Amino acid sequence: MTLVHDDAVRRFGARAGTVHLVGAGPGDPGLLTVRAASLLASADLVLHDQLVPPDVIATVGLSADVRPVGRRCGDVVVSHADVVDLMARAARAGAAVVRLKGGDPTVFGRGGEEALELLDRGVGVELVPGVTSAIAGPALAGIPVTHRGLSRGVLAVTAHTRQGINDEDWDVVARFSGTVVVLMGRRTFGDLTRRLAAAGRPADQPAAAVAWAGTPQQQVVVATLSTIADAADRADLGSPAILVLGETVALHERLADVTRATVSAAPRTAG
Amino acid sequence: MTLVHDDAVRRFGARAGTVHLVGAGPGDPGLLTVRAASLLASADLVLHDQLVPPDVIATVGLSADVRPVGRRCGDVVVSHADVVDLMARAARAGAAVVRLKGGDPTVFGRGGEEALELLDRGVGVELVPGVTSAIAGPALAGIPVTHRGLSRGVLAVTAHTRQGINDEDWDVVARFSGTVVVLMGRRTFGDLTRRLAAAGRPADQPAAAVAWAGTPQQQVVVATLSTIADAADRADLGSPAILVLGETVALHERLADVTRATVSAAPRTAG
Repeated sequence: MTLVHDDAVRRFGARAGTVHLVGAGPGDPGLLTVRAASLLASADLVLHDQLVPPDVIATVGLSADVRPVGRRCGDVVVSHADVVDLMARAARAGAAVVRLKGGDPTVFGRGGEEALELLDRGVGVELVPGVTSAIAGPALAGIPVTHRGLSRGVLAVTAHTRQGINDEDWDVVARFSGTVVVLMGRRTFGDLTRRLAAAGRPADQPAAAVAWAGTPQQQVVVATLSTIADAADRADLGSPAILVLGETVALHERLADVTRATVSAAPRTAG
Repeated sequence: MTLVHDDAVRRFGARAGTVHLVGAGPGDPGLLTVRAASLLASADLVLHDQLVPPDVIATVGLSADVRPVGRRCGDVVVSHADVVDLMARAARAGAAVVRLKGGDPTVFGRGGEEALELLDRGVGVELVPGVTSAIAGPALAGIPVTHRGLSRGVLAVTAHTRQGINDEDWDVVARFSGTVVVLMGRRTFGDLTRRLAAAGRPADQPAAAVAWAGTPQQQVVVATLSTIADAADRADLGSPAILVLGETVALHERLADVTRATVSAAPRTAG
């Protein structure tokens, strides 16, 4: 599937001997950056997270070697150290390498860590920002993270075990008046929301859970802080999913179709 | 300047009678999404923020009517109400309209507000996420907002007068252990950093100011919470600028060239 023009590939394409650490965005191929699409069209080797959906992988050039790496449901497919070794070896052999990560590589994507490890091995590195699921995940469900009169900021954290919220930050997350977005926490929704309510975040505040944002499989569940975990379970919500906590969740009702159109093939007509 | 393939325009292009509220990303044309580039290539009317740089405007199709709107240094070029009126009239007359906003339209971009106002007038609307300057601004300066052992999350707020930090949130922003990013606050760096230090954020914590992230004019100043405002003044730092507060700022020293490469035309060779 060709998304970018030859001009864009010439300007933004992959470089021999370099590892490009690239954000894939939330899952819709249209939300790849032009630079990411150009890199995917011109790379020799593409190593992608298991969570990057098939529609995005389909944009990789036909001559590239494409391999899934990382974890899926806790099972390590290729270890982190092995991925870095593989990238370094391929780049040193002259390959143009793309390491494709869901969302943005610096938002819980270990992009900075991999960049440092590759630099330590003397390999040329480039880090390419992407559309982060922390912002676009809510937006694609019709929830703007900021909105005049409702939210003056956004706080993104992860509920993932090894990078989870610090003890000292629970109170901060509970008290922040803007939108809170929790990434990679599907299994911990219950614990997390109980702990935030106990720390003082209003139990009746609107809350949403969004799975597979930006893909045809997108699921959205809307409830409150105290009911969202059960509601997500009842709806059999998939993973990966994000949790969105704040007053702007109420806008979902009016804005869901507006952003959902991003992944729709049907043309609209004038209103 | 053609960035996207005809296939991408057919799949992701602008629709007659619709207003597309589109994120332009931080300023590098390569960081437009494929969808944004397709919309710009096929729109009849493009209304853009003053802050969207010329290299991005240059990707608009030759047959489009292109107009700057919004504020520049406090001067209103076209009022918000007039912009919404203009978009609604054009869409009703059958035009494919793109409203292009810097970064992401839902991160202090009034995207949700404009979507609601247009829906109230019966106009078809689509909101298209972009690469937010809140994440990519730091990244393009070599600062990942999260990093194992240094930052477990990111908090983005604005220092802009009318949407500024709530009184109750100053303490939250001061105490958050992850990275704090302040948008649209160039004129208030001094007040803001003094207030955060007074509320308990460590005065010697690394801090960076980044102007025009993702453009050839990008400027980065690195100091500490207590010295960054003066350092930015001494460096004659431009506007728009973001402020980045947190331990990952120290990674700038090693990662600055890695992300800076995004806007470089020079090819790299194997290390």
